[in-house]
Amino acid sequence: MKKRNLSLLMDFYELTMANGYFKDKKHEQIAVFDVFFRSIPDEGGYAIFAGLEQVIDYIKNLRFSKDEIDFLRSKHIFNESFLEYLSTFEFNCDVYAMKEGTPIFPHEPILVVKGPILECQLIETMILLTINHQSLIATKAARIVYAAQGRGVLEFGARRAHGYDASIYGARAAYISGVVGSSNTYVDFQYKIPALGTMAHSYVQSYDSEYEAFKSYALTYPDNAVLLVDTYNTLKQGLPNAIKIQKEVLDPLGKKLRGIRLDSGDLTYLTKEARKMLDAAGMKDTKITVSNSLDEYLIKELIHQGAQIDSFGVGERLVTARSEAVFGGVFKLAAIEVNGELVSKIKISDNVQKTTIPGFKQVYRFYDENCMAEADVMTLFSESIDATKPYHLFDPNFPWKSKDIENYTVKPLLIPIFEKGKLVYELPSLEAIRTYARQEHERLWPEVLRLEKPHEYYVDLSKELWDLKQNLIRQYKK
Amino acid sequence: MKKRNLSLLMDFYELTMANGYFKDKKHEQIAVFDVFFRSIPDEGGYAIFAGLEQVIDYIKNLRFSKDEIDFLRSKHIFNESFLEYLSTFEFNCDVYAMKEGTPIFPHEPILVVKGPILECQLIETMILLTINHQSLIATKAARIVYAAQGRGVLEFGARRAHGYDASIYGARAAYISGVVGSSNTYVDFQYKIPALGTMAHSYVQSYDSEYEAFKSYALTYPDNAVLLVDTYNTLKQGLPNAIKIQKEVLDPLGKKLRGIRLDSGDLTYLTKEARKMLDAAGMKDTKITVSNSLDEYLIKELIHQGAQIDSFGVGERLVTARSEAVFGGVFKLAAIEVNGELVSKIKISDNVQKTTIPGFKQVYRFYDENCMAEADVMTLFSESIDATKPYHLFDPNFPWKSKDIENYTVKPLLIPIFEKGKLVYELPSLEAIRTYARQEHERLWPEVLRLEKPHEYYVDLSKELWDLKQNLIRQYKK
Repeated sequence: MKKRNLSLLMDFYELTMANGYFKDKKHEQIAVFDVFFRSIPDEGGYAIFAGLEQVIDYIKNLRFSKDEIDFLRSKHIFNESFLEYLSTFEFNCDVYAMKEGTPIFPHEPILVVKGPILECQLIETMILLTINHQSLIATKAARIVYAAQGRGVLEFGARRAHGYDASIYGARAAYISGVVGSSNTYVDFQYKIPALGTMAHSYVQSYDSEYEAFKSYALTYPDNAVLLVDTYNTLKQGLPNAIKIQKEVLDPLGKKLRGIRLDSGDLTYLTKEARKMLDAAGMKDTKITVSNSLDEYLIKELIHQGAQIDSFGVGERLVTARSEAVFGGVFKLAAIEVNGELVSKIKISDNVQKTTIPGFKQVYRFYDENCMAEADVMTLFSESIDATKPYHLFDPNFPWKSKDIENYTVKPLLIPIFEKGKLVYELPSLEAIRTYARQEHERLWPEVLRLEKPHEYYVDLSKELWDLKQNLIRQYKK
Repeated sequence: MKKRNLSLLMDFYELTMANGYFKDKKHEQIAVFDVFFRSIPDEGGYAIFAGLEQVIDYIKNLRFSKDEIDFLRSKHIFNESFLEYLSTFEFNCDVYAMKEGTPIFPHEPILVVKGPILECQLIETMILLTINHQSLIATKAARIVYAAQGRGVLEFGARRAHGYDASIYGARAAYISGVVGSSNTYVDFQYKIPALGTMAHSYVQSYDSEYEAFKSYALTYPDNAVLLVDTYNTLKQGLPNAIKIQKEVLDPLGKKLRGIRLDSGDLTYLTKEARKMLDAAGMKDTKITVSNSLDEYLIKELIHQGAQIDSFGVGERLVTARSEAVFGGVFKLAAIEVNGELVSKIKISDNVQKTTIPGFKQVYRFYDENCMAEADVMTLFSESIDATKPYHLFDPNFPWKSKDIENYTVKPLLIPIFEKGKLVYELPSLEAIRTYARQEHERLWPEVLRLEKPHEYYVDLSKELWDLKQNLIRQYKK
């Protein structure tokens, strides 16, 4: 049982900047920062937003203890009055964010902080760290669950995660995206994510024979036994022993073998053969689970080949998002108050994709009459959309590509989380987040969900915001 | 400030197996488990062992609280006497491990647990999780530091790490492998890893002009100012402003600008031009730091092109080990006691590389007369090596490939950590680990250190161990 206080888990430059703002008496200047990302991992069509609950938890508890202040003082670069300020730190910002489980797309703000610039800056690192991690895993899990086409996906990655939090919050993020459980007992204890698992090869090896190991296990768990059949030889030994267990151990108890698991070999061939053997033995209800370096690509391929698999245990390639282990969320200045007025800021880059979208913004999602998501539109926060009227959508990079839509519904995606530092958002349960995530996922067109070469979902700007951006670019060019 | 107890951070199957062992009264049977890995990330020539301190910390504190026991009871699959056992759990195993910072190679045990099989199993997940994570990052950091050829490498990845622990222990592992500091303030506070950092683009943007922002910063940190020069235009604006700051702000104070940082653009071209401009302005002591998606490959290429860089800030590609985000350490049964005698176990696989090396083992490292590492040899734990006599090394897969060596020194790499559950290892300081890591790294031949297509370091078996393995394979074939 350890205590930990993560208040100082921030990039050191947040503190050196804060001290500079404080010295210049600029620290209470109101600023707006956007969190957004520029590209979807694995060249996918969508990402899934996750981590908000932990961001809230961090912000709510952000204080600096005497030890931490003393540590900062020992650096001999911080102003004493700044340290005094930190020692009585209170959070006063507004925070808006999308709900966890929302499909998100490049360039749109997924979280917005508005408040004293010093405070915005202090929470940058933890916001990014938390959201980048959980959104990465939620996105990867969504792809894997999608590939499994209704078969269960089990999160088995604890031993390969990047530390304890990665295992815990990785399992949480994966659960939001639809995995049915995790190998990690802790997340069942803490988050009621069903813990799953049966036996390792060592269990089988530690008994005099595979049959003895299976028998022990089946007698210990007559209702839940899943036998690992590949320790010695899957088809010649493991399956025949599993079938013998049914006949000799479970039949007399009136029980059915819950399942078998394979962790090696050619999973298409072996599961087809295993299914035949189980069926021939009258064990049609015995499920087949497989594991071994699975990801969405291999799962898709196994299903395509007709492998007989009921559920997939997915480990390292989910919990580390191995194929693309980075979610590139950034935290960028969008506006700053000057003489009581919010002035929109832009950062121009030679790389068009890196030019920021200025201003304090809202994001609206448009759904068609069948509730399918059609497009997102970024607007100035103050704009409203009258859904009784047609709306003109246009591509912000190629404005002549446009269409007018009617019979749509629309909802703002950024909702208030903190108002002047006060938490105003009622946190949903993890089950509610998961349900919402599934529902929103179902509202994406198949062409957006496709694992490879998906259609690019429309993320547009309102006319007003587009004009603002063009004006700032023109101003800058002068 | 939160308390957390990670005792249940274990794969659920550790508990279902433990309950099975307990029911069969097998739980006190003595077993030996090896931790080893099969392949080096990034096709490198070596990996670096890290994470032992956190493994020790976990084991020392492993207890099960009433809440945890109640949670397990609620699963309705665990025996009440097993839960009773857990509620008074005490650790009684022997643990041997390599020292943190040791270069490690595939197939050799890097940590060995010997003790009651139930206890061994319960600590599997956390041992693997901890060692896999930190060894992954330590290995990646060693490659990056090596590529930088003496220039400083700064760990800047907090915002892209896989959760809080990944940021904290990732920085720790990177520091072991020679990075000079981290952006993460927490690790300075907790581990005295120097926290580094200066300013973000938002700082520059929040002032009326870049010059004003630089001036504010230089006056706040006259001894340490590093100016981020790429917010608007590096060569046309950022550099001229930095030079003006030296002349107009720092010269009058008798101070020198510490450095500039570039985070975008072509780093070879820009740093060459920047160096010329700084030198022409008499600012030869002003250092150039760069960042932006760096890793060992890009660093090598930049240096090869003559880029003028004094230090590298490396973020997401270090802290996530993006090019290969998985370190594949496994935990395998090597021996089990039957009737008071330790019986070696092997797991045969069609994949030769996946066949385990049986028995309770030690690993010896052989150094030549210049203290360069020549080979590792796995032996039975009870074997000893007489360094006054020649030693016959042979390739375990191709035994006719052999050589006799003389004038060597040899040291056992696995040292006692716990004896019958009691910690007997005196934990070195982080600085001592870092010094040891550097020293051992220097003892590897350049051909092993090479980033691409390195020489395969020899990891051999003693004759006795090789015979044991062959015997078990023959036995198994019958």
